[in-house]
Amino acid sequence: MGVVGKEEKRVDAYDKVTGRAKYTGDIFHGKMLCAKVLHSTIANGVVKKIDISEAEQIPGVVKIVTCFDVPDICFSTAGHPWSTEAAHQDIANRKLLNKRVRYYGDDVAAVVAEDNVAAERALRKIKVEYEEYPVFVTTDQAMADGATQLHEAAPGNVLKQHSYTVGPESVEQAEKEVSQDKDIVYFEDTYTLQGVQHSHIEPAVSYAYKDGNRFVVVSSTQIPFIVRRVVAQAMDIDWSLVKIVKPYIGGGFGNKQDVLYEPLNAFLCECVGGRCVKLELTREEVFFSTRCRHPESYHFKTWVRKDGRLVLRKLELVANQGAYASHGHAIAANGGNEFKQLYQSEKCDTAVIKTVYTNCAPGGAMRGYGIPQAVSALESHADDICHKLNLDPLEFRKKNCMRKGYVDPGTGIRAYSDGLYDCMEKGRILFDWDKKWKEYNKPQTGDIRHGVGMAIFAYKTGVYPISLETAACKMTLTEDGGVLLAMGATEIGQGADTVFSQMAADAVSVPLEKVHIISQQDTDVSPFDTGAYASRQTYVSGMALKKTAKVFRQKILEYASDMLQHGHAGNKATRVDLFADKLDLVDGNIIEKVSGNVVLTLAQVGMESTYSLRNTNHIVAEETIHCTDNSFAFGACFAEVTVDIPLCKIKIDRIINVHDSGKLINPKLAAAQVHGGMSMGIGYGVSEEMQYDPKTGRLLNDNLLDYKLPTTLDMPELETAFVENEDPTGPFGNKALGEPPAIPCAPAIRNAVLQATGVGVNDMPLSPQKLYDEFVKAGLIAAESEEA
Amino acid sequence: MGVVGKEEKRVDAYDKVTGRAKYTGDIFHGKMLCAKVLHSTIANGVVKKIDISEAEQIPGVVKIVTCFDVPDICFSTAGHPWSTEAAHQDIANRKLLNKRVRYYGDDVAAVVAEDNVAAERALRKIKVEYEEYPVFVTTDQAMADGATQLHEAAPGNVLKQHSYTVGPESVEQAEKEVSQDKDIVYFEDTYTLQGVQHSHIEPAVSYAYKDGNRFVVVSSTQIPFIVRRVVAQAMDIDWSLVKIVKPYIGGGFGNKQDVLYEPLNAFLCECVGGRCVKLELTREEVFFSTRCRHPESYHFKTWVRKDGRLVLRKLELVANQGAYASHGHAIAANGGNEFKQLYQSEKCDTAVIKTVYTNCAPGGAMRGYGIPQAVSALESHADDICHKLNLDPLEFRKKNCMRKGYVDPGTGIRAYSDGLYDCMEKGRILFDWDKKWKEYNKPQTGDIRHGVGMAIFAYKTGVYPISLETAACKMTLTEDGGVLLAMGATEIGQGADTVFSQMAADAVSVPLEKVHIISQQDTDVSPFDTGAYASRQTYVSGMALKKTAKVFRQKILEYASDMLQHGHAGNKATRVDLFADKLDLVDGNIIEKVSGNVVLTLAQVGMESTYSLRNTNHIVAEETIHCTDNSFAFGACFAEVTVDIPLCKIKIDRIINVHDSGKLINPKLAAAQVHGGMSMGIGYGVSEEMQYDPKTGRLLNDNLLDYKLPTTLDMPELETAFVENEDPTGPFGNKALGEPPAIPCAPAIRNAVLQATGVGVNDMPLSPQKLYDEFVKAGLIAAESEEA
Repeated sequence: MGVVGKEEKRVDAYDKVTGRAKYTGDIFHGKMLCAKVLHSTIANGVVKKIDISEAEQIPGVVKIVTCFDVPDICFSTAGHPWSTEAAHQDIANRKLLNKRVRYYGDDVAAVVAEDNVAAERALRKIKVEYEEYPVFVTTDQAMADGATQLHEAAPGNVLKQHSYTVGPESVEQAEKEVSQDKDIVYFEDTYTLQGVQHSHIEPAVSYAYKDGNRFVVVSSTQIPFIVRRVVAQAMDIDWSLVKIVKPYIGGGFGNKQDVLYEPLNAFLCECVGGRCVKLELTREEVFFSTRCRHPESYHFKTWVRKDGRLVLRKLELVANQGAYASHGHAIAANGGNEFKQLYQSEKCDTAVIKTVYTNCAPGGAMRGYGIPQAVSALESHADDICHKLNLDPLEFRKKNCMRKGYVDPGTGIRAYSDGLYDCMEKGRILFDWDKKWKEYNKPQTGDIRHGVGMAIFAYKTGVYPISLETAACKMTLTEDGGVLLAMGATEIGQGADTVFSQMAADAVSVPLEKVHIISQQDTDVSPFDTGAYASRQTYVSGMALKKTAKVFRQKILEYASDMLQHGHAGNKATRVDLFADKLDLVDGNIIEKVSGNVVLTLAQVGMESTYSLRNTNHIVAEETIHCTDNSFAFGACFAEVTVDIPLCKIKIDRIINVHDSGKLINPKLAAAQVHGGMSMGIGYGVSEEMQYDPKTGRLLNDNLLDYKLPTTLDMPELETAFVENEDPTGPFGNKALGEPPAIPCAPAIRNAVLQATGVGVNDMPLSPQKLYDEFVKAGLIAAESEEA
Repeated sequence: MGVVGKEEKRVDAYDKVTGRAKYTGDIFHGKMLCAKVLHSTIANGVVKKIDISEAEQIPGVVKIVTCFDVPDICFSTAGHPWSTEAAHQDIANRKLLNKRVRYYGDDVAAVVAEDNVAAERALRKIKVEYEEYPVFVTTDQAMADGATQLHEAAPGNVLKQHSYTVGPESVEQAEKEVSQDKDIVYFEDTYTLQGVQHSHIEPAVSYAYKDGNRFVVVSSTQIPFIVRRVVAQAMDIDWSLVKIVKPYIGGGFGNKQDVLYEPLNAFLCECVGGRCVKLELTREEVFFSTRCRHPESYHFKTWVRKDGRLVLRKLELVANQGAYASHGHAIAANGGNEFKQLYQSEKCDTAVIKTVYTNCAPGGAMRGYGIPQAVSALESHADDICHKLNLDPLEFRKKNCMRKGYVDPGTGIRAYSDGLYDCMEKGRILFDWDKKWKEYNKPQTGDIRHGVGMAIFAYKTGVYPISLETAACKMTLTEDGGVLLAMGATEIGQGADTVFSQMAADAVSVPLEKVHIISQQDTDVSPFDTGAYASRQTYVSGMALKKTAKVFRQKILEYASDMLQHGHAGNKATRVDLFADKLDLVDGNIIEKVSGNVVLTLAQVGMESTYSLRNTNHIVAEETIHCTDNSFAFGACFAEVTVDIPLCKIKIDRIINVHDSGKLINPKLAAAQVHGGMSMGIGYGVSEEMQYDPKTGRLLNDNLLDYKLPTTLDMPELETAFVENEDPTGPFGNKALGEPPAIPCAPAIRNAVLQATGVGVNDMPLSPQKLYDEFVKAGLIAAESEEA
């Protein structure tokens, strides 16, 4: 009878719609100085000299700091929990400012000034002398003989490489067997995925000031507690000397799961005697100098029976890390795991996974964390196989995909439901797949052609056991029977505050309107939590909430019992028999279990515990969960397209995502989450791509005019459906939902184009230029002559 | 070996000295609207009509609200803990804006505008029609027949009256006996004390905005949790729908122990759709429209033996409450209690205490809470007696004053030390009292005359048992072994943050630099505390801190034991024997009790409890103290003056305060606290006075030019000394120190002038004008003719 599962309104809806909600850039801590970063104009080389003498003369300039002035400390920026085991710590190869320049736009100096104008003017007056090295923007170039080594610990520019083999047979044995079996067909293909940018509305922005000997950094971040740690590490100070505050945030999508400019911001603050300094990136800087989704290539060798059963598969995965480690090898590794998890071959699956440094902007976390690349490649490859063998792609997937009971042999993560099957079945019916697929499954002619395609994925919930999963929650009872709910987990636009409020209402058993969530995280006072990433919060932080509610309820019942036994302001008569175990808290009332009678309201308990003349005991509970569970979420996307061959243009006629994310805490918000993810997936599939000048390493389209983010006019009607297989490990039967929707759209569209045109594009995205090249290659259109 | 008792530097010293510390007025929550209040230009009457039509036309005006638009809700503004017993609740007779005008400057309308200029312009265009009633600014006028009744519940304008009698005999019996005893001398006199203003540097200032359906009010207040409650009551909403934040504060001295304009601020915010509205008073408004120290009159009838022993005393105390109840009768009652506590007569002491409404600015809490008036009157009267009987005032006091073991028969508060004796003795020697008093104790002639005077006082610590005493504290362990210390108790400039940090360092046993206090209170996340008043925080909140530290230490030792038993990142070897009771935490290290060996650092415990891969359990403790103790603090002031008779001018040659506030947590801060109090006491004694026009009720000197606050040039060298009688009930042997220093200076100076000139001024302050009148009356100088 609770509110979990109900379509409750977002708790921040009005504030965000009316503009009342204040973001980092809206708040002013007295007179704030303005910081601007000077970015390198070469992609690979060394700063020989910086002349700031002219820049310092600009009126309003307060301080100029160069790469020669910063501490000689390398720190990691990954939004991962700290590991007490050195071997598991993230690679630390970033400095506050860099003499060794590794990408076009690297940070070489910074200006602090009274205002933006003075800071910008000063930037233009700083003279930098470089020694330049040859530039490489592809992993092949990076690994070629003679390429400059970017980081000491990465010979051949390979950040890390690992491999695995799973399945009942060894690779050798399997290879021998498939080579002798005539019914087995061999496929080999490479799929390349482009780099894309998160394009969150709010750029990276922070301001820092000193409070005593402590640093306060207010930042638009997904991970305040991790930022606290990294700011301290970057300056080699006690971690408790840093406090991070996170106000409302205008999106992050994983870019703000990295520690971006907060350490430099804090350092600049220190350089001006602790005065408040604000550092807000431009859109251009966000593009070329924060993080992006890794460009990757998936090279598959696959042996399949003619009926579609996978027999043996080999993967070589290479991820383009760009200039700095950021999340290191974790994202490629995550994609590598999808290979073995989504499908299991009869004999053996084997993979080699490599992360390679280049002179591009650093790859980092982005919604899906390597899985959009993996699924784009896997699912393109699947349909290429089906296309050649004339198999129904849905049947092919059913034959090979992960089933209930599957346990990843590496991580131990289990499939607690047949979600892949269920999503495919639900989608099949909603989409009318069988009819559509058959209808278009024939050679088409003419300028306008039609096709359907699909893709599936599995996605884990949180990071256990690869990394630590821990979260905490605090509840405080107010005088009116309200519950102040403090989470270390962060609202980043995804609706966390709303679903936590719903969870708390049910877990404590109070009406939803009596739950007041504290949206802003402040590492001094918020319960510890590692932050918003890995679609972990409703699952892991939800567990912390549930545990806290239990302790909180017990404290309430014990206090209520004490009130009843001693009499209280509202009723001097006593009920000495009503020990806590005889009481229950139901919907904001304390009831006697046996009779069901209300004996106290929660407001009475709140008032008395705060203001009792006999026994005040302000009721709070704060609990930590150490999570050692995980669970796969699932989903499928079905797309129908019309392709205009001469125009090289795709129109998405219909697209539907079906998800098994377990029990939905708030179906309306869940649907909204899916809509957002689908739009991201569509952009990934058809238009977005970070394009580097191979000569200079400069990002050519570092703005929203040249970078083709889909607009509302580009969006088809987005359809969503859910299979609510309640998860046995989720605190409320729930599992991952935040990232999954971004995963399957691109390959589903790509596969629909394959059916429509017979052309399988292996080099994403399906932009008109790419389609033109492919259609020419396939002979669908004639190449234009240069004179044309 | 700890830091309690050490002269540690203030934790906020650098920020306040460098200007880095940000106060309410320094922070901007986006674009803020500006609110200004329209104050009545009559002191007694009714608003008939308000015409805002012209004012609304002023560009930039967003909203005008008048007394006809506010909810019909009366609320209390007193900074007292809420009482669940209706009979003990504060008088609620204030509205957000008032149709019934009760003082010159009452709030009748408010303007919200884009900026101050527009708001001020609009104020001038609002037309108000009043019906006027006769004005009364004295209590005699208020109680006279025919005076308009200001509040329904106060016939005769008497807010409240009570009386008591203490002593071994009845009044009748005592009167009969003294009338028959020739050795008993009778004295009768009236002492009147003027109203003064706190004159804190930072005016009342707040801003309010809505966050969802909740109100956030950022305010310069001493009592955030009480402001939360009153804001909610004033708008009749759930208390948990209000959040109060208190940044750094530029002084309060009790004025901000009242809820001033926060409720109106929140209401105005609601009236403009939740946009952020700032309301900052001018200095003039602070003077005429916040609170002040009550003008009071003490009428004594005293029977004394010729040797100085008090036999029977009667007191009639009348306090001028001004227009609204504020703290009600509590302040007069507190002064009334000092009468029976400071001295005990042989037979009987009896008092009638009355609080009376007038058309003045409301009297409220101010440093000393009624005791400066009481002690000024009592100690003036004491020296008048000594002067007439030629007794050494110090000997007189020793003969009559409160001694160790005294228990107040009304409140049960006990004197745990002979502090009054000890302070007098210490002062006697430091001041060389005996010699000085004898030297000046003879008829003096000439223009320049000298005298010494003294005064003593007793002051309780906190409000128990008159009111509830409750406080809470939270401690959080950080990864580096730091302790985040959160108090609900507020730093208001007095040094609370520093002494709490010292207490925590010792109570937890960590170096002081590892304690990081969270200075800002936020009612959503700060532990509950009623606030800064009644010199209660080091005592009551200190108890909460000590209790929390105990629980916190236990959690640390238990986690440390768990680490040792299971191995941890720093050491995989186990020590299965080391249960928590075998461990101790000393100076930031976990030691094995038996050997004294360090087995872990606190930093190791902090890191492991946060990031353990086996068992994270973020260590926090939050505890409430329900305090049922109290203790008298004591003190004495000795002053030496030179009086220039023709100039009517006093020069303070020497002044020394001696205090027994128990163990001093930080002697340097304690001395600074005393200096501040003494300067306030000197201003009270010689220059400060709120002067009302008796016809219009208008405050004539509502600015710092006309109101004679002493400047640094007026200050003599301020000497301080302490008697550190460790208090058995104080958490660290400490008791009240914040308010006491302001109490005894005025009467000590007055008594020194009495010795120098033979003139006892009974109508404070001793301003040149007052001295002129008195010296003329005494024949010391001739009255100037009108022609002169």
